[in-house]
Amino acid sequence: MIKFTEKAPYAPVEYLYDVEEILYKGKSAFQDIAVIKNSYYGKMLILDDVVQITERDEFFYHEMLAHVVMHAQKAPKNVVVIGGGDGGVVREVLKHKSVEKVFFIEIDEAVISVSRKFFPSVSSGIDDPRVEIKIMDGADFVAKRKSADIDAVIIDSTDIIGFARSLFTDDFFSSVRNCLTENGMFVTHTESLHFHKDMVIEIQEVLKKVFPVVDLYTAPIATYPGNWWAFAVGSKGLSPREIRHVYDIDTKYYSDEIHQQAFLPKKFYEKLMQRKLEW
Amino acid sequence: MIKFTEKAPYAPVEYLYDVEEILYKGKSAFQDIAVIKNSYYGKMLILDDVVQITERDEFFYHEMLAHVVMHAQKAPKNVVVIGGGDGGVVREVLKHKSVEKVFFIEIDEAVISVSRKFFPSVSSGIDDPRVEIKIMDGADFVAKRKSADIDAVIIDSTDIIGFARSLFTDDFFSSVRNCLTENGMFVTHTESLHFHKDMVIEIQEVLKKVFPVVDLYTAPIATYPGNWWAFAVGSKGLSPREIRHVYDIDTKYYSDEIHQQAFLPKKFYEKLMQRKLEW
Repeated sequence: MIKFTEKAPYAPVEYLYDVEEILYKGKSAFQDIAVIKNSYYGKMLILDDVVQITERDEFFYHEMLAHVVMHAQKAPKNVVVIGGGDGGVVREVLKHKSVEKVFFIEIDEAVISVSRKFFPSVSSGIDDPRVEIKIMDGADFVAKRKSADIDAVIIDSTDIIGFARSLFTDDFFSSVRNCLTENGMFVTHTESLHFHKDMVIEIQEVLKKVFPVVDLYTAPIATYPGNWWAFAVGSKGLSPREIRHVYDIDTKYYSDEIHQQAFLPKKFYEKLMQRKLEW
Repeated sequence: MIKFTEKAPYAPVEYLYDVEEILYKGKSAFQDIAVIKNSYYGKMLILDDVVQITERDEFFYHEMLAHVVMHAQKAPKNVVVIGGGDGGVVREVLKHKSVEKVFFIEIDEAVISVSRKFFPSVSSGIDDPRVEIKIMDGADFVAKRKSADIDAVIIDSTDIIGFARSLFTDDFFSSVRNCLTENGMFVTHTESLHFHKDMVIEIQEVLKKVFPVVDLYTAPIATYPGNWWAFAVGSKGLSPREIRHVYDIDTKYYSDEIHQQAFLPKKFYEKLMQRKLEW
């Protein structure tokens, strides 16, 4: 049987997937891009030998990345999505009727075009008139933006190495804060609480220098090594734990119940940040 | 580099671990048994090519299997542990001062002796005077027991195939119920909510024929494929969601907060059981 061996950075285990078919294999200015067909997951998008999304379970990640900060605000209008060239986060953001504008900032145009071709159900929102695509570094986009009119900045980057590193610095987080409205929020994935606990803590610490409210929630993502995936939120004031507009959209995993349950319990969060959790 | 490729039943992905050293390799009457040393996880116990426990993260599984039903009762005295020859669940059960007797029923004596040798910190409770080891099929033990004096029956089996199948039948669950005190509870792992959703549902359905209260909680176990690991509880009356004695024991992951957060939210559980969750 033909197999694909994933080489995820930092992960102490490799994942091995059967390959029914190689649908695409190419190289952009930034990374290797492949699309394979797996007997269980369907089509899988692979960047630099790391699985990004699969047809079968992409909604876990996209819903949990988008809907927590979107529901924690009354009527988010302007949203910035950085990365996520597959369009999955944009699709979820557009489900909120209050949204008027999505700046969709992707550094690698090739990811968008491959996704349009092979993952139409994921990239379905990209051509919505509310979406403005910009092919550029997300760090540049927020650094150059002068007005504080964005309600949510959502980072859907690859693993925190290489060119994605610019999205995990003090400077970047400060630029993001300056773009946000008074009730605005920022969210980013921060790897696995099992395998990358120190990185999860460090990103919380950097965010705390920049945002008055910082929090952490998790979701079970089977295709990301370690699974127990952590999402960091920085907020200018509102707590992201509270739902502030009615949950009336169609989702497969996210719900009001999941929103509240996803956040780390308070004592557990404190122990984590005091580096008292041992594993 | 030398690698071990795990062959977990039902899982659509294989896990690949580096092998620093093979510490033990043998064959019992029931299964192949191996102990390897991995650079991240330390020693790993492998039965029939499936990882059972690792030194680094065994506590996630053992704590979450033992402490939920133990804390959901006022003062559990008599406990039956079936399987779990490594002794990890027995170690956790003995942390509860109310416990007077643990019947430790393991079908394969070789697992106990290998664990005594290679995992002393896991098997540490086995020689406690409150523990009575019986080398036999757990299904026989509960079927032959006449008195209803057990407060908790905890199943720590291998995957639900082969000889472990006898622990997942109507007959077995009925025998368990007959051993339990009025407030008694039963818990078993039921594979991953990601990969084995139908099996999780089916075991809930079978339990509902036998127990008036049936519930489901999960925990993130990185070394079990699919990770989002499901635990099924059958209770003769009490809800396992409530904590009924003070949490005063030393644990690394389990806590009162984690206990309550681990259970599936109610609407989500209903959707699962109605087979309305699509993945």
